[in-house]
Amino acid sequence: MLASEDGLPCNRDVHEDLLRKLRKLLPPEAVLTDKEDLRPFECDGLSVYRRLPLVVVLPETIAQVQAIMRLCHVLQVPVVARGAGTGLSGGALPLSDGVLLSLAKFKRILHIDPENAMATLQPGVRNLAISEAAAAYGLYYAPDPSSQIACTIGGNVAENSGGVHCLKYGLTVHNILMLKVVTMEGELLTIGSETLDSPGYDLLALMTGSEGMLAVIVEVTVKLLAKPERAQVLLAAFDDVFKAGEAVGAIIAAGIIPAGLEMMDKVAIQAAEDYAHAGYPRDAEAILLCELDGTNAEVSEHIMEVREILHQSGATEVRTAVNEAERQLFWKGRKSAFPAVGRISPDYYCMDGTIPRRQLPHVLRQISLWSEEYGLPVANVFHAGDGNLHPLILFDANKEGELARTEEFGQRILQLCVEVGGSITGEHGIGMEKINQMCIQFKTAELSQFHAVKAAFDPAGLLNPGKAVPTLQRCAEFGAMHVHHGQLPHAELERF
Amino acid sequence: MLASEDGLPCNRDVHEDLLRKLRKLLPPEAVLTDKEDLRPFECDGLSVYRRLPLVVVLPETIAQVQAIMRLCHVLQVPVVARGAGTGLSGGALPLSDGVLLSLAKFKRILHIDPENAMATLQPGVRNLAISEAAAAYGLYYAPDPSSQIACTIGGNVAENSGGVHCLKYGLTVHNILMLKVVTMEGELLTIGSETLDSPGYDLLALMTGSEGMLAVIVEVTVKLLAKPERAQVLLAAFDDVFKAGEAVGAIIAAGIIPAGLEMMDKVAIQAAEDYAHAGYPRDAEAILLCELDGTNAEVSEHIMEVREILHQSGATEVRTAVNEAERQLFWKGRKSAFPAVGRISPDYYCMDGTIPRRQLPHVLRQISLWSEEYGLPVANVFHAGDGNLHPLILFDANKEGELARTEEFGQRILQLCVEVGGSITGEHGIGMEKINQMCIQFKTAELSQFHAVKAAFDPAGLLNPGKAVPTLQRCAEFGAMHVHHGQLPHAELERF
Repeated sequence: MLASEDGLPCNRDVHEDLLRKLRKLLPPEAVLTDKEDLRPFECDGLSVYRRLPLVVVLPETIAQVQAIMRLCHVLQVPVVARGAGTGLSGGALPLSDGVLLSLAKFKRILHIDPENAMATLQPGVRNLAISEAAAAYGLYYAPDPSSQIACTIGGNVAENSGGVHCLKYGLTVHNILMLKVVTMEGELLTIGSETLDSPGYDLLALMTGSEGMLAVIVEVTVKLLAKPERAQVLLAAFDDVFKAGEAVGAIIAAGIIPAGLEMMDKVAIQAAEDYAHAGYPRDAEAILLCELDGTNAEVSEHIMEVREILHQSGATEVRTAVNEAERQLFWKGRKSAFPAVGRISPDYYCMDGTIPRRQLPHVLRQISLWSEEYGLPVANVFHAGDGNLHPLILFDANKEGELARTEEFGQRILQLCVEVGGSITGEHGIGMEKINQMCIQFKTAELSQFHAVKAAFDPAGLLNPGKAVPTLQRCAEFGAMHVHHGQLPHAELERF
Repeated sequence: MLASEDGLPCNRDVHEDLLRKLRKLLPPEAVLTDKEDLRPFECDGLSVYRRLPLVVVLPETIAQVQAIMRLCHVLQVPVVARGAGTGLSGGALPLSDGVLLSLAKFKRILHIDPENAMATLQPGVRNLAISEAAAAYGLYYAPDPSSQIACTIGGNVAENSGGVHCLKYGLTVHNILMLKVVTMEGELLTIGSETLDSPGYDLLALMTGSEGMLAVIVEVTVKLLAKPERAQVLLAAFDDVFKAGEAVGAIIAAGIIPAGLEMMDKVAIQAAEDYAHAGYPRDAEAILLCELDGTNAEVSEHIMEVREILHQSGATEVRTAVNEAERQLFWKGRKSAFPAVGRISPDYYCMDGTIPRRQLPHVLRQISLWSEEYGLPVANVFHAGDGNLHPLILFDANKEGELARTEEFGQRILQLCVEVGGSITGEHGIGMEKINQMCIQFKTAELSQFHAVKAAFDPAGLLNPGKAVPTLQRCAEFGAMHVHHGQLPHAELERF
């Protein structure tokens, strides 16, 4: 396990020194080196990548985190921080010659301040636990990734997580106020403030979504929102997926911002219905779920307007959940779409790209053409309101060549997202998974600027190396490879 | 004019070389060096600081900006970028041995996309002009600083401007999608995307509010919002300023987010009423203006709730504007409060600090005690909803020692803002004005991180040097000075 896969100096003596010193800093049960103890940390939610770390540390205090970081800085040992490990892009994949720093013991809710509608949390607090604790005050924390039962607020900040409600309530970055972070050198920084804005460069936003590359998050202060008086969901069925895409644009153009606006196509509808029995129309080509929240009067008014728009857009059926139980059932179908699709296909590849809303019909049409070309079915499940696509490509890894065809198909989808003005990730992050696609998204000048920002925090590149931002050399190689295959769109050719 | 005040190499030959080369890059009318031509650029809205630049350049294209930056980079000449010059903290103060780069000719609205509710603008487009152009589509741009008739979107991004409506609709950073910027080396970077999130570090947020220290903004893509169906304003009078402060907390605690929630105290009320004849109750100790917007039904519901809360909080009078004309009049009084106060006092010092809302009554009480102690009246005008204070200290610069007493009083207010968990600026930026106060707000570790981020963009420190982020040496000197005066609070003593 001591071989260096990552181009960093590999030295058995250094590692022995590291382990000895870690055991001085932490109690025995907080320094794990046995293979069986390391196993649970070998991957995150993207389990196709697996690697055992050199050591797992489980600190309990900020001072311990600082001491660990100082030690790793002195010994020049790389560090990967980890929350619940629910990430879908391999951002928490360990290094075999590095420390895996788990924040699992940082799970206390430090303070809830109902008057100022904020909560201060240790990074290992689960996303859903925040809303559960705030419920006593009629408050909740808005961002709700599908993994919210398990994922932690520290991981949410590292990935800038979204969720079904981010169209109206924003991503994690829009819902946090303050962070405490520990740098690679062991310095404790407080960034942001309890107020709307704070002076100096916006390190709070910079840290959010930085995928553990800049510092280790040790405390998070979030905004809480008052629970809306009423939430109601509409389900609309369409006989044409493009009509559903156009209805999305029409709702937004009417000036209505739904709390959630989700779309599923036929493959996804049928899978979800068979799994969750949500009452979805099995024969529809697409459904939209549109949640409206606010005051009683506002929701009533918006429901009427949205119904009208849906009918005008050619919906064959529009239903309003008759009660809270049915509302929950409508959402259950959507939220279980991924596991439901997992039942109908040996394997699936979950894409995550974002496009400007107006491109929705065009992109859906193109995906459907490619689906025929590759002979691979696609289930489309996505946050339509904010243009965040999750096409699931169904395949069978045991069939010769099917994985390779799937990856090629997936990459074309991401390239299309970039071409139409969107991006290669909506909420799952870059991590290991999409590091090559970053070369499509950005030019050399922007990548160079990213590296300079990274160096401003971690000049030796010890924090989560190899993730999120590719080296220019990697992009050159990736570009060259693609030019060779003749698949690079014209715009890309100019870049390399 | 060639003496270096800024510690940068001063060299007549370099300057002559610079001017000769600038004249090759730009037409003659775009390179100003005559004293009279330079005069309009000698200061921004903080006119207490004045300085003539070496040269003013007025490029018209991004390519010209890149060429200017490349030239200044090669010759190591500092550059200060400037929009409309309405900033209130001296951020656009020129350098006598530097280039003043005016974006005044970048005033085209490049594209309005109603379907995706966004607009792409050159940086010199005036804030209000965006909403005027978007009005044809029922859309508007939300952030509305008081200077919105004159200030430009590029300057808004540089300062992360707010305004009366930022409580509900956010600051500039929450309302932009994409930037094109030119670095000190002349590289053109595209940051952000048309979608909700984009991969890589959040350079979009980092650039916003960076006060011209990281790059020159040459294009801005903003979000547009649908105009609310209805906006209505309530005016509440109080016989006690602290009751008004508590009413603010009660409204927010009820889960209502007003479009604007403004407070004025007696000095401000009377000055504004005498000036704008807005119908304010002259004998009230404080008034609140509370604007509610949304659908018709929602606004009606919220008006009833807010009226009830205001009465419960001890309001002596609650009025709802009877029509749009009265609504505009209520706001006219508030928006003209600064010039109105300017009529009743020879001079005033406009503070800009932010505090957590719960601290409002405490901070108001303390300001009122200090006002008596210093014998200097204070008019309080502020964005109460988001805790952004604008106390105006009234003084007479012609009275011996009164300016010095005013500055000392002002500094105590800012220190108090920091002590209660707030910050030294809400929306006016740091610039020249508050660079010393940054030493109170931040510790060495955070300031060092700011310098590292700056160096990641501009290692030679040529972009707007001397602004926004103090050197550690400056903080040490500032700290020492204050210890000497014996005024530094205990927490500060520990920092130096």
